[in-house]
Amino acid sequence: MDMIKDILDVKTNERVEIIDITPQLKAALIKTGIKTGLVTIFSRHSTSGIVINENESGLVEDFKNALESLVPTSKSYKHNKIDNNADSHIRSFIIGSSETIPIESESLGLGTWQSVFFVELDGPRNRKVTLTFIGE
Amino acid sequence: MDMIKDILDVKTNERVEIIDITPQLKAALIKTGIKTGLVTIFSRHSTSGIVINENESGLVEDFKNALESLVPTSKSYKHNKIDNNADSHIRSFIIGSSETIPIESESLGLGTWQSVFFVELDGPRNRKVTLTFIGE
Amino acid sequence: MDMIKDILDVKTNERVEIIDITPQLKAALIKTGIKTGLVTIFSRHSTSGIVINENESGLVEDFKNALESLVPTSKSYKHNKIDNNADSHIRSFIIGSSETIPIESESLGLGTWQSVFFVELDGPRNRKVTLTFIGE
Repeated sequence: MDMIKDILDVKTNERVEIIDITPQLKAALIKTGIKTGLVTIFSRHSTSGIVINENESGLVEDFKNALESLVPTSKSYKHNKIDNNADSHIRSFIIGSSETIPIESESLGLGTWQSVFFVELDGPRNRKVTLTFIGE
Repeated sequence: MDMIKDILDVKTNERVEIIDITPQLKAALIKTGIKTGLVTIFSRHSTSGIVINENESGLVEDFKNALESLVPTSKSYKHNKIDNNADSHIRSFIIGSSETIPIESESLGLGTWQSVFFVELDGPRNRKVTLTFIGE
Repeated sequence: MDMIKDILDVKTNERVEIIDITPQLKAALIKTGIKTGLVTIFSRHSTSGIVINENESGLVEDFKNALESLVPTSKSYKHNKIDNNADSHIRSFIIGSSETIPIESESLGLGTWQSVFFVELDGPRNRKVTLTFIGE
């Protein structure tokens, strides 16, 4: 069994942005030559997340509105005395920093309606996502 | 170290249903012969989730009520112009599509009060859950 | 490739407490001798969670307040007829029981502002966290 590492660079353009990284992930998988296994997708940032869901433009807006509704941008947060992004951290705390996806027949084992999203919660920024492939 | 794949078929009967798949998962583990390792449980659907918690009937109702309270079924969602299940996707976005569990002494390394749940958020449907066992 | 198991003992002192376990995790990693790989951190309890975020004291208070705001302690929960901790379970359901982190150059592959937290949701208690290291 092999373990192969890679890094995705993700450039974001908005404060809150939900970016489909599935094409970059597929390209990285092909380079590894792994046929069956797992890939762990890990965001190295505490104001971002990795999520799997459907890439439909209206739904992506609904996700952003849900984040605002669950964790409002403008509220009296203690962290905002240090840095004005407590909402970004709390949203990251809830959605999580990583996902692990099966690899099957040299492809990502995603369902028909699943895409992998990098969720920017305090952009615009240049972000790094660590990929760890395990398999054979 | 070995990597072994399996698929669980999960038939759901309600729109929102929280189904304990621990027995199926234990049966799949026994077939692998793995004694120590990890298993990644991945739902191939964007209106479902995998969660670990206690299987107590009142609590399972509380989970459903919490999902309704956090992400209401009836709200003006943009995705609902395409398909009337934005709430299902948003709930999946929050709870996550996979979990990874230790394997120890040929058993799932769960605590006394932990069960593994498939969370149906837009049923009834026939669902597929990919299992990836790594270990020896 | 090797697989090495370890257990962290985490003693908690409050009902809701967010504890930085990064130092314990680093110490456990050094013992393994693994240079590149992954570590899965799994809490064996259904009223706790594992989360990655920034360790800043004001922000940690914000996380606790957000948990209270999203899932109030005092509400009419069905599970509370059995045990008075439905809020603890529901919070665990949302934040998740595990995280998987890359290992690179004999270190945890965390970003500058990332710490690993054990989230106690029904303390004080003595808790067990299972670590599974895979790598070489």
